[in-house]
Amino acid sequence: MPLKTPEEYIESLRKMNMEVYLFGERVKDPVDHPIIRPSLNSVAMTYKLAQDPLYEDLMTAVSNLTGEKINRFTHLHQSEEDLVKKVKMQRLLGQKTAACFQRCVGMDAINAVYSTTYEIDKKYGTEYFKRFVEFLKYVQTNDLVVDGAMTDTKGDRSLPPSKQADPDLFLHVVEKRQDGIIVRGAKAHQTGIVNSHEVLVMPTQTMREEDKDYAVCFAIPTDTPGIKIIYGRQSCDTRKLEEGTLDRGNPEFGGHEALVIFDNVFVPNERIFMLGEYDFSGKLVERFAGYHRQSYGGCKVGVGDVLIGAAALIADYNGTSKASHIKDKLIEMVHLNETLYACGIACSSEGHPTEAGNYEIDMLLANVCKQNVTRFPYEIARLAEDIAGGIFVTMPSEKDLKNPELGKYIEKYLKGVSNVPTINRMKILRLIENLTLGTGAVGYRTESLHGAGSPQAQRIMISRQANLEMKKKLAKDIVKIED
Amino acid sequence: MPLKTPEEYIESLRKMNMEVYLFGERVKDPVDHPIIRPSLNSVAMTYKLAQDPLYEDLMTAVSNLTGEKINRFTHLHQSEEDLVKKVKMQRLLGQKTAACFQRCVGMDAINAVYSTTYEIDKKYGTEYFKRFVEFLKYVQTNDLVVDGAMTDTKGDRSLPPSKQADPDLFLHVVEKRQDGIIVRGAKAHQTGIVNSHEVLVMPTQTMREEDKDYAVCFAIPTDTPGIKIIYGRQSCDTRKLEEGTLDRGNPEFGGHEALVIFDNVFVPNERIFMLGEYDFSGKLVERFAGYHRQSYGGCKVGVGDVLIGAAALIADYNGTSKASHIKDKLIEMVHLNETLYACGIACSSEGHPTEAGNYEIDMLLANVCKQNVTRFPYEIARLAEDIAGGIFVTMPSEKDLKNPELGKYIEKYLKGVSNVPTINRMKILRLIENLTLGTGAVGYRTESLHGAGSPQAQRIMISRQANLEMKKKLAKDIVKIED
Amino acid sequence: MPLKTPEEYIESLRKMNMEVYLFGERVKDPVDHPIIRPSLNSVAMTYKLAQDPLYEDLMTAVSNLTGEKINRFTHLHQSEEDLVKKVKMQRLLGQKTAACFQRCVGMDAINAVYSTTYEIDKKYGTEYFKRFVEFLKYVQTNDLVVDGAMTDTKGDRSLPPSKQADPDLFLHVVEKRQDGIIVRGAKAHQTGIVNSHEVLVMPTQTMREEDKDYAVCFAIPTDTPGIKIIYGRQSCDTRKLEEGTLDRGNPEFGGHEALVIFDNVFVPNERIFMLGEYDFSGKLVERFAGYHRQSYGGCKVGVGDVLIGAAALIADYNGTSKASHIKDKLIEMVHLNETLYACGIACSSEGHPTEAGNYEIDMLLANVCKQNVTRFPYEIARLAEDIAGGIFVTMPSEKDLKNPELGKYIEKYLKGVSNVPTINRMKILRLIENLTLGTGAVGYRTESLHGAGSPQAQRIMISRQANLEMKKKLAKDIVKIED
Amino acid sequence: MPLKTPEEYIESLRKMNMEVYLFGERVKDPVDHPIIRPSLNSVAMTYKLAQDPLYEDLMTAVSNLTGEKINRFTHLHQSEEDLVKKVKMQRLLGQKTAACFQRCVGMDAINAVYSTTYEIDKKYGTEYFKRFVEFLKYVQTNDLVVDGAMTDTKGDRSLPPSKQADPDLFLHVVEKRQDGIIVRGAKAHQTGIVNSHEVLVMPTQTMREEDKDYAVCFAIPTDTPGIKIIYGRQSCDTRKLEEGTLDRGNPEFGGHEALVIFDNVFVPNERIFMLGEYDFSGKLVERFAGYHRQSYGGCKVGVGDVLIGAAALIADYNGTSKASHIKDKLIEMVHLNETLYACGIACSSEGHPTEAGNYEIDMLLANVCKQNVTRFPYEIARLAEDIAGGIFVTMPSEKDLKNPELGKYIEKYLKGVSNVPTINRMKILRLIENLTLGTGAVGYRTESLHGAGSPQAQRIMISRQANLEMKKKLAKDIVKIED
Repeated sequence: MPLKTPEEYIESLRKMNMEVYLFGERVKDPVDHPIIRPSLNSVAMTYKLAQDPLYEDLMTAVSNLTGEKINRFTHLHQSEEDLVKKVKMQRLLGQKTAACFQRCVGMDAINAVYSTTYEIDKKYGTEYFKRFVEFLKYVQTNDLVVDGAMTDTKGDRSLPPSKQADPDLFLHVVEKRQDGIIVRGAKAHQTGIVNSHEVLVMPTQTMREEDKDYAVCFAIPTDTPGIKIIYGRQSCDTRKLEEGTLDRGNPEFGGHEALVIFDNVFVPNERIFMLGEYDFSGKLVERFAGYHRQSYGGCKVGVGDVLIGAAALIADYNGTSKASHIKDKLIEMVHLNETLYACGIACSSEGHPTEAGNYEIDMLLANVCKQNVTRFPYEIARLAEDIAGGIFVTMPSEKDLKNPELGKYIEKYLKGVSNVPTINRMKILRLIENLTLGTGAVGYRTESLHGAGSPQAQRIMISRQANLEMKKKLAKDIVKIED
Repeated sequence: MPLKTPEEYIESLRKMNMEVYLFGERVKDPVDHPIIRPSLNSVAMTYKLAQDPLYEDLMTAVSNLTGEKINRFTHLHQSEEDLVKKVKMQRLLGQKTAACFQRCVGMDAINAVYSTTYEIDKKYGTEYFKRFVEFLKYVQTNDLVVDGAMTDTKGDRSLPPSKQADPDLFLHVVEKRQDGIIVRGAKAHQTGIVNSHEVLVMPTQTMREEDKDYAVCFAIPTDTPGIKIIYGRQSCDTRKLEEGTLDRGNPEFGGHEALVIFDNVFVPNERIFMLGEYDFSGKLVERFAGYHRQSYGGCKVGVGDVLIGAAALIADYNGTSKASHIKDKLIEMVHLNETLYACGIACSSEGHPTEAGNYEIDMLLANVCKQNVTRFPYEIARLAEDIAGGIFVTMPSEKDLKNPELGKYIEKYLKGVSNVPTINRMKILRLIENLTLGTGAVGYRTESLHGAGSPQAQRIMISRQANLEMKKKLAKDIVKIED
Repeated sequence: MPLKTPEEYIESLRKMNMEVYLFGERVKDPVDHPIIRPSLNSVAMTYKLAQDPLYEDLMTAVSNLTGEKINRFTHLHQSEEDLVKKVKMQRLLGQKTAACFQRCVGMDAINAVYSTTYEIDKKYGTEYFKRFVEFLKYVQTNDLVVDGAMTDTKGDRSLPPSKQADPDLFLHVVEKRQDGIIVRGAKAHQTGIVNSHEVLVMPTQTMREEDKDYAVCFAIPTDTPGIKIIYGRQSCDTRKLEEGTLDRGNPEFGGHEALVIFDNVFVPNERIFMLGEYDFSGKLVERFAGYHRQSYGGCKVGVGDVLIGAAALIADYNGTSKASHIKDKLIEMVHLNETLYACGIACSSEGHPTEAGNYEIDMLLANVCKQNVTRFPYEIARLAEDIAGGIFVTMPSEKDLKNPELGKYIEKYLKGVSNVPTINRMKILRLIENLTLGTGAVGYRTESLHGAGSPQAQRIMISRQANLEMKKKLAKDIVKIED
Repeated sequence: MPLKTPEEYIESLRKMNMEVYLFGERVKDPVDHPIIRPSLNSVAMTYKLAQDPLYEDLMTAVSNLTGEKINRFTHLHQSEEDLVKKVKMQRLLGQKTAACFQRCVGMDAINAVYSTTYEIDKKYGTEYFKRFVEFLKYVQTNDLVVDGAMTDTKGDRSLPPSKQADPDLFLHVVEKRQDGIIVRGAKAHQTGIVNSHEVLVMPTQTMREEDKDYAVCFAIPTDTPGIKIIYGRQSCDTRKLEEGTLDRGNPEFGGHEALVIFDNVFVPNERIFMLGEYDFSGKLVERFAGYHRQSYGGCKVGVGDVLIGAAALIADYNGTSKASHIKDKLIEMVHLNETLYACGIACSSEGHPTEAGNYEIDMLLANVCKQNVTRFPYEIARLAEDIAGGIFVTMPSEKDLKNPELGKYIEKYLKGVSNVPTINRMKILRLIENLTLGTGAVGYRTESLHGAGSPQAQRIMISRQANLEMKKKLAKDIVKIED
């Protein structure tokens, strides 16, 4: 049966031979590296909850390709209900990890490539769709994690791929062989790649004929020769190397991004899903981004739930939970968080089928969803910091607490209300630090801003979907202007 | 067949004998009064579109009581889909009228009273539900407009009904007879009452035993003796008395609210749906408010569409539509408007059945929806004013334009781009004035703020629905605090 | 002595023969027209307070031209202290009128033209400065009101003056004579022109050589033949024609704007202050706008004080003043209002002398001031509406209140706390309506947005003044980047 | 002469014997500890710039006590101009360090204690003022750094000092001797204490008679026996222990806060400035907070300048600086930053003398200033993150860059525009990370929120200073309500 246990998942990764670098050195066993492991734990949670009957309905689905019960993260959405369940699954996982669990990019990429290859084939008589279905069956049957890789490093943003001083600043085909292609370039910000079995590479933007060689889509194992993964630094990352877990804030879970170099990497023909059909690159980007903008209406809301819970707890521990301004700030946090959720739900329940048969979100509402995600988590974080009090950034270290002499002072003086142990107060303060300034903030704040496209990308999509001409007509009708 | 034509609707109102006052005088025929008529036109649109096959799916439904096709405004929601269609119907009507079309309060009251009377009967063995179903069949079969009347005048807001200096400041039972009751009091801000056949009166807040006489719910015709309707003034209301329609902004449509006095009014037993069951007053208020907060995620979005269209048009007419800041402001308007819509849709698609069988919105999301409605239309209006330029508040009158000599100057100097007639530019400017400062602003701005409950009412509901204890548990789990 | 009494001022206006049109008809005596009069009352307040020893320090100054005590509105600022006093005087007048008192445009124009003519003369050897000083002595000695007229009607905003389909869409010189010039065009949004003795016309934007004929500055009496003033409509303007003063909201004061046509108007040489020196048009605009953007940090703050007071009063009258959310909203209103004031003060206290010797504000901070004014009054207004409750837009008319039978009901049911007469509650509600939707809202909201230039105009100025290169250098120094 | 060089300052600190703990261990020489040193560098900058003739006017002043030229940080403000110069000095130092330079708390404490001891003496005939003047002469003559210590650890925030489960949760007098007193307790968030010669302890809030023992104010050297300083952790603090400086973001400067334990510390009589005069504790707190809220209108603006500069640079490096949305975001950042500055300037230029003769800021405007500081830096930071692109949180480490093989890939793929070295781009990205998530964010974000009192503290002060009664009177006058 296709559902792996978390243990099987971890074991399967351990067997891979990825070329991962961190702090200037090759990482021998990424699975056990203390900085990487928390991110693996987050992905493992997507396997764990799928085993739990309590969450079966959200975490699993029946494959339209194989008829088997599969992890929803490998599923092609078959209805609006599937789209809604996706968002609810993401909120659940955000709640359980307070981190980025990384597996969404693959799910979103799969759904976008599925419908787009169908349409390319229809226009050009190619066979990308068939190839992709085969790939996807393999993913579903083996319950794999797929990294959806879109963002190129881009160099000078005012120039298109083919006009860059260095042609490799966007990933492109450098050689075509009988059996496949050689590609070169890099993808930035690759979420969860070290915890992924496969990487599904897509072009990064709308392209024109002169950028044809950059219009390429394919999937290969993450340990394919020539793929070099340079792990990204996060705020407070090295706290995970310290003794103890208090100062980490989130002791068990995390996320990661990496810079992934494709240094003349070979891709066999059966894994190529687009090769030069530049007129479909924009569509593919728009779809992947659309699905991923929907995702943020789930995952970030789940993390927001944890942060709201932490803020409510610290108010209890500080003895301030009855102050009207504290209550009001908690209400505002909930209000903003649920507004994001409403957008995630609405773009799903208003979904529609593609020609290929899988379901797509409402594009306008998905972009509206993400646009709000670029704003509200920042305000939620600010309110959490407000409720916490300044101590979450001035608190002594866990080592101070564990020092026999100093520890007494810290126990005594960092006490809040008398019936709560000081250590509990410190744990919650560190969690708030984690989500507002630390490793968690990378996911909760900055990724909310830039993940699935920076704010301006959504504004452009909103503009395109706004149907201003129809709205002008409404206004003309009201005042009886006839053209 | 139950669907009235607009003409039949107007005729039916003309036959009533309501006691309506305006500017200190009794209005003889409200249907034809120039200040009232635009609000009637808006309600008539709910009849007109129901006749149109194009809108049949949104505007009509099959009654679960009679099996007949009825106007959706008289319908008990039978599914999440019904709840979603309600919101879409409201957006449509907002687009077609750029005004408050008034019929939602009745629809929302009907759905709230239906499920609540069911539950009262279950607890107390009363027969309110049966009575209410009979009333509702009558409404559906005759395609009537029902005014849902909740808000009391309230006097000193820091005191409960029974502690007010004047006991009538909340509507209450003053006498119980064999065949019915006598009530006294007033309901404020009654939307569309002059265009309604029936008024469905509900208590205004949670009550305690001492306020028992105030826990009363009933429906009676709006021309029942003792009901006195004092029409409320709106900003710019008398422009509707002036010659010409230009300065009205919205030449055809409008909305209205009135202060409704119940001066010892008799209610027959068969029309009483609650009488002293004070423990259900809170539930009833919450439900009506919940449905009505959902409504605002539809109707105000439709009006917003018109305002966005007007702003886009005036940019065209001013020659500014290519300026990047103008485009960005239009995007922001769309973004905010669609966020409201997303909330309206989400609280609907996440609905659930009540014990009585009709469907109820998700309460948390409905309150979140309305809370956003208390903010975003204000910003949308501000942006529309920004794009319009100051001329929409300094422009000469229609009479100036029609003056042969002055008119030439106005034609000449208020010209925008050369291919658009000055009169069209003026029409759109007056429409923007209407929606931001004039009669339309009463509906688009202030009603967005206070309708269905003032902002703080939603915050209280959000607080109750926030489930902070669950969220605290999530945070504790992440940092491994055990209680 | 140069200080006129309010009576003398009104008398002096009555002697003029302005060509004023309102609702398509020539107004015989503007001074006594009920729609115009409230705006006159506001200007008269600038005379009245100047007579009051209590306000002497703010309201008057010693002229650097004549050595006499003059009204500060005719003064050339001689120090940073003068600039600060200007702002305080404006706040005071906003508090006393809750309206636009109109006399600032002249003061700001005078100060801008003074320094600019000095600089033109220096470059071109012209004698504009001398002429202007003579004009100004006349204004100071006779305590006149001057309308500063800048904004052209502009036609297609994407085109410069000389490229418009109709060359008159910007005011320009159509003939040069021995003794003067003939001008044609129109100025829009002319604040207070009907209450002004003189109009000081300035170009509306930076110009190039081809727009030379549009680079013209002059002053003439407002009743000069060929000047036609078409009075602008305001929201709720005709309430001033109704019996009673309750429904006006602000019973005594108001403001006005008008469209002013210059139909081949003759300007004698001694009143010409710029004629073709297009390279100074940008400087003059920037200066006038700068002074006027400072002004808004005073006048709107004063009006804001009244609105905050009204909100606090209505909370008292409603019995809600002890609710924590009400208190918090009042704090927010004060906070926003004082932020505007702080900007008004800061751009003044950071002022500096011009070459001509009068003082100029800090340009960056003045633009920052106005940019905030385009936002905060809207939020202050929204909060006032929130605190008021919906009744301020649904309340019956004064005529209803005065009707013997209806009046009883209104008295009874619109009562708030028991010790405050209903009429007082109604007066405050109408004042809030006035400032958020009515005639006062034109000044408090829309004029805050567009007066002294629309929001984007300030952003352009902020951009120019931002000194980003210096800031980049700071960042480079911190990270030790050497160029 | 009283002005120390930076070297003399550092030497003077090295001679002290403070008991400093970090990561559970006593720090032998704090001056040279790599985590602490950047914060020392920031303080040293206050000495360095005072030596520079270019900044003499801002950085130094003539003492009213000694007649000598002193560092402005030890000065009693003698005029509004002094208050303004203080703010400008702070902006300058923020620009030069992009960090908290820590010396303001002492300056603000000195000015607050000066006027308050004067008033205590006047009421009670004590001699605190004389003592304080002696202390201050010592500080000025020796150019010392003084830590102003106010915030107690507070335990259960819903209880006053004397009701806490542990009486030491607020610092208090535990013994009175002939020659002095013994105090016990702790002060949290002590900014710069490790870089300070003296600590000036003040009570933390308004107190009542039962809290008399907590109403104590005194100054002692920071190495007085019994004072234990536990250094606070900051986000990314240990990056300062790593090789290289790139990943620090700000290679040279920083700030710090610490938890300071007073474990039965002796204070000699001549250093006691309040002892039980609980009725003055509120006044002292209000004054210190007021001065410190003013400070934030300078220092944070300076840091904001650096962040704006960094954002403008990264736009250049990314090739996006011509995009209209980027330009608009930079304008918004400048606008918000200058609004803070305007508030800092205005509360200064509107200052007034105390009874003791030094100058105090305008309390309302100082609180308004700080309230804005609790909001705008968060938005400025969000906009900087937006402009930067996600790479600032996913970028490889300096060690990766320095690895010969990996370095080539990073150089190649993290290149922006072709004429800027990759390393420069990385430096600016790390600076943005530092100020939005790293050590700098502690100062720029969280300290902006909680320093000088959390947001609600300012709201309470704004409420007290709002003079709502006067504003109600204004509204009554407008509508002619007579009481």
